[in-house]
Amino acid sequence: MKKTLQEIAQYLGGSVYGDGEAMISGLATLDDAGEGQLTFLANPKYAAKVATTGASAVLLPEGSDPHGHNAIFHANPYLAFAKLLTLFYTQPPAPLGVLPGAFVAEGAKLGADITVHPGVSIASGVVIGDRVTLHPGVVLYPGVTLGDDVTLYANVSVRERCRIGNRVIIHDGTVIGSDGLGYAPDGNSWYKIPQIGIVIIEDDVEIGSNSSVDRAALEATRIGRGTKIDNLVQIAHNCVIGEDCMVCSQVGISGSTRVGNHVIMGGQVGVAGHVKIGDGVVVAAKSGVPNNVAAQQMVAGIPAVPHREWLKVSGSLPKLPEFRKALHALEKRLDALEKP
Amino acid sequence: MKKTLQEIAQYLGGSVYGDGEAMISGLATLDDAGEGQLTFLANPKYAAKVATTGASAVLLPEGSDPHGHNAIFHANPYLAFAKLLTLFYTQPPAPLGVLPGAFVAEGAKLGADITVHPGVSIASGVVIGDRVTLHPGVVLYPGVTLGDDVTLYANVSVRERCRIGNRVIIHDGTVIGSDGLGYAPDGNSWYKIPQIGIVIIEDDVEIGSNSSVDRAALEATRIGRGTKIDNLVQIAHNCVIGEDCMVCSQVGISGSTRVGNHVIMGGQVGVAGHVKIGDGVVVAAKSGVPNNVAAQQMVAGIPAVPHREWLKVSGSLPKLPEFRKALHALEKRLDALEKP
Amino acid sequence: MKKTLQEIAQYLGGSVYGDGEAMISGLATLDDAGEGQLTFLANPKYAAKVATTGASAVLLPEGSDPHGHNAIFHANPYLAFAKLLTLFYTQPPAPLGVLPGAFVAEGAKLGADITVHPGVSIASGVVIGDRVTLHPGVVLYPGVTLGDDVTLYANVSVRERCRIGNRVIIHDGTVIGSDGLGYAPDGNSWYKIPQIGIVIIEDDVEIGSNSSVDRAALEATRIGRGTKIDNLVQIAHNCVIGEDCMVCSQVGISGSTRVGNHVIMGGQVGVAGHVKIGDGVVVAAKSGVPNNVAAQQMVAGIPAVPHREWLKVSGSLPKLPEFRKALHALEKRLDALEKP
Repeated sequence: MKKTLQEIAQYLGGSVYGDGEAMISGLATLDDAGEGQLTFLANPKYAAKVATTGASAVLLPEGSDPHGHNAIFHANPYLAFAKLLTLFYTQPPAPLGVLPGAFVAEGAKLGADITVHPGVSIASGVVIGDRVTLHPGVVLYPGVTLGDDVTLYANVSVRERCRIGNRVIIHDGTVIGSDGLGYAPDGNSWYKIPQIGIVIIEDDVEIGSNSSVDRAALEATRIGRGTKIDNLVQIAHNCVIGEDCMVCSQVGISGSTRVGNHVIMGGQVGVAGHVKIGDGVVVAAKSGVPNNVAAQQMVAGIPAVPHREWLKVSGSLPKLPEFRKALHALEKRLDALEKP
Repeated sequence: MKKTLQEIAQYLGGSVYGDGEAMISGLATLDDAGEGQLTFLANPKYAAKVATTGASAVLLPEGSDPHGHNAIFHANPYLAFAKLLTLFYTQPPAPLGVLPGAFVAEGAKLGADITVHPGVSIASGVVIGDRVTLHPGVVLYPGVTLGDDVTLYANVSVRERCRIGNRVIIHDGTVIGSDGLGYAPDGNSWYKIPQIGIVIIEDDVEIGSNSSVDRAALEATRIGRGTKIDNLVQIAHNCVIGEDCMVCSQVGISGSTRVGNHVIMGGQVGVAGHVKIGDGVVVAAKSGVPNNVAAQQMVAGIPAVPHREWLKVSGSLPKLPEFRKALHALEKRLDALEKP
Repeated sequence: MKKTLQEIAQYLGGSVYGDGEAMISGLATLDDAGEGQLTFLANPKYAAKVATTGASAVLLPEGSDPHGHNAIFHANPYLAFAKLLTLFYTQPPAPLGVLPGAFVAEGAKLGADITVHPGVSIASGVVIGDRVTLHPGVVLYPGVTLGDDVTLYANVSVRERCRIGNRVIIHDGTVIGSDGLGYAPDGNSWYKIPQIGIVIIEDDVEIGSNSSVDRAALEATRIGRGTKIDNLVQIAHNCVIGEDCMVCSQVGISGSTRVGNHVIMGGQVGVAGHVKIGDGVVVAAKSGVPNNVAAQQMVAGIPAVPHREWLKVSGSLPKLPEFRKALHALEKRLDALEKP
């Protein structure tokens, strides 16, 4: 694809500086961009690199110095660049139909313009929308439903009766609807509590690779519209995750916990079971959240406390051995003063 | 399935309160249950919900207030409800045999009444018991043995010569018997130590999705009878895990560690290599266990200490910045006193 | 395989003590070894076991007491034993070609002496070297390249255009090249940033089971030559990992972080995004690394500090409640002294 700088500026809603007729045929980073390529500056930390980039044009925050380059000024260069990447580099794959080597049970209902690769298994009672792509090794158990424009990458499995909305993307190896860890103590051993609920994944959710979302014991584990989940994440049974959340890699959310909308969790966060995380909460990476968190709080630490508090605590921690010494010194001084 | 309240009480060994002829056709939570459904109260925290539930009957701890509902009183309503779920909602699947699209090597021995789905690979020398179900994409490497009544969900792989007992359930994507992380330093690089041992999984074990249990370097990594392991758990090479343990999601147990019976580990716990965890130990979520833990201890923290101690420490932690101030204040007061 | 002790000593470059004609037909641990087997002592902690082992010979550090056993003395018994394991127990599998039930797209280029198991999917544009083994369920997306002597275990998937070097081993269920967690905030929701980069895995890398290495947003996520990565590890997009590193299980490395050569990370370590970890750094298990770490440092804790500091801090932590009491006691004593 080739476009003039002017065409691109118009597409993005930005303004051109320099030569609007410059031809752009690709996108790259400040460091790597060369002739014919457009790059972008989002983080002011890297502003100095604009001067030295080999790019033919730069997408810049309004008011930045283009250092003599052709440029597009835009209110949100990061978002604008993402939209250009979509324009230049992505296109819906041509549908290939059900390819030889795919196993489709009788009675499964398949939408239009789908691609089902070799090695896919589709069980009875499955319903699939239009423009769905199922990569090799995807397994859809009985009664699963997928909306339109869903992409499931290789070896994803979706267990019995789970429901997946429109425009959902799930990366390789992720499991939707495995049994929750539910057992009742029965004397010396554990009695398995049948997990008869399902998982509901709403529209526009994306889930990374090798993650696990467990089915509910009785009702539904739910991932809200627009929420993005990274790799190797555990969502336990009965959880309800809100809309437009961002859950980073290796997070674990224990059973029956409710997470509000627009919540962000850093990598390796753990959340206890049966707690409520309010809307807009941010949990710093590696934190452990044992209790409810009110909306709009930023929390950190194990156990998690308000982020400001945690900064003070973690700042004091390395001084703990000094405190010990200081305490002993004070005790000695007091001993001396108290001597008759 | 439909049963009278009286029939259910008899099945469970409980006593009926109210109308023993009430028909029960399903089970649900206190919040969701309606006409014809039975619900249960296990956690006294939710006792108030009994008054407002729409259920036709409630399974209650002996001595509870049924709030005018039909009820079954039982010593252990949680376990009783689990048994009802099994009765109402689970049944062994009808065996389908080896379905087209499954790959079975010559010389593999298959038991009676099994189901082998399309896309399963069974290598030479594999021995499979009766009533085994292998979902699509399961891979059994050469020499693997499975007992009776085993269920392996989609894309589980069991590596060379590993042995799996009776009634074992393994959820989608879990890997049994991948190589342990064993290397000998060889000058600047790492020399791979061949991992020639196996994994032995004893009877009645259940393992969640996307977990990894590594084969031993020389002998056997072992998971004891009745132990339940959650999703995304790492069991490293040479570990011996006892019986009836409960290992929550994202736990990692390092190589050659020995875990006793009835041990419970919360989510995201890490245990060092070559340590011994005694029988009945409970490790709180997110803890890091660097050393041996004596039987029947509850431990928490990084590094893990007795739970009571950890509660005091973690309770004191947020006050650390105050301590610092208090120390400085004391120093000033002492300075003043010491002035001649 | 059978060899005399003398032959083995010669192969390893060690010296025989006792009967050089003793026949060795297998290897085992000090505890388990019996007649005809050779064992080894690497950790002096277990030296007492040499006296009681049933082995026919022992591989010992120079100068150790053989306790009357036949022995080979060697400067590095651990490495020597690993080499013997390779000699006795491993051999390259006989190539079987492309087996029935494998799906190979037209235009894929396959090397000599390969084995492609049933259920493997090889897309168009894939290039595969010689002596490659692809276990069942492996999925190679369009444009992937594999070097020579590569082994991919069951259900590994390698996404579009990723490049894998020579002698690379990847264990079951691992995903190479899933999309990085890249989104631009777009008002209330997240706009997906197309991840158009790749993953490059250099020669002699080994990756465990169920790990995830994300493709770069624009360029390449890179795993350096000889680096060994364990199970359930997350390597986020744009990371560059150096050579001969050892990354233990459940480690998570956030986006765009650069890790030097010969770095060792213990289990469950988390590293923030956009940081630099110098050559030879050791990060203790369960640590959280928020910032750059200079070369040759050993760090520990959350947040990670120099290991020596952390030992002092974590040693003082359990005494925190005592400090609190001591502070109060000092305050009272001062109150008394200050009374007029």
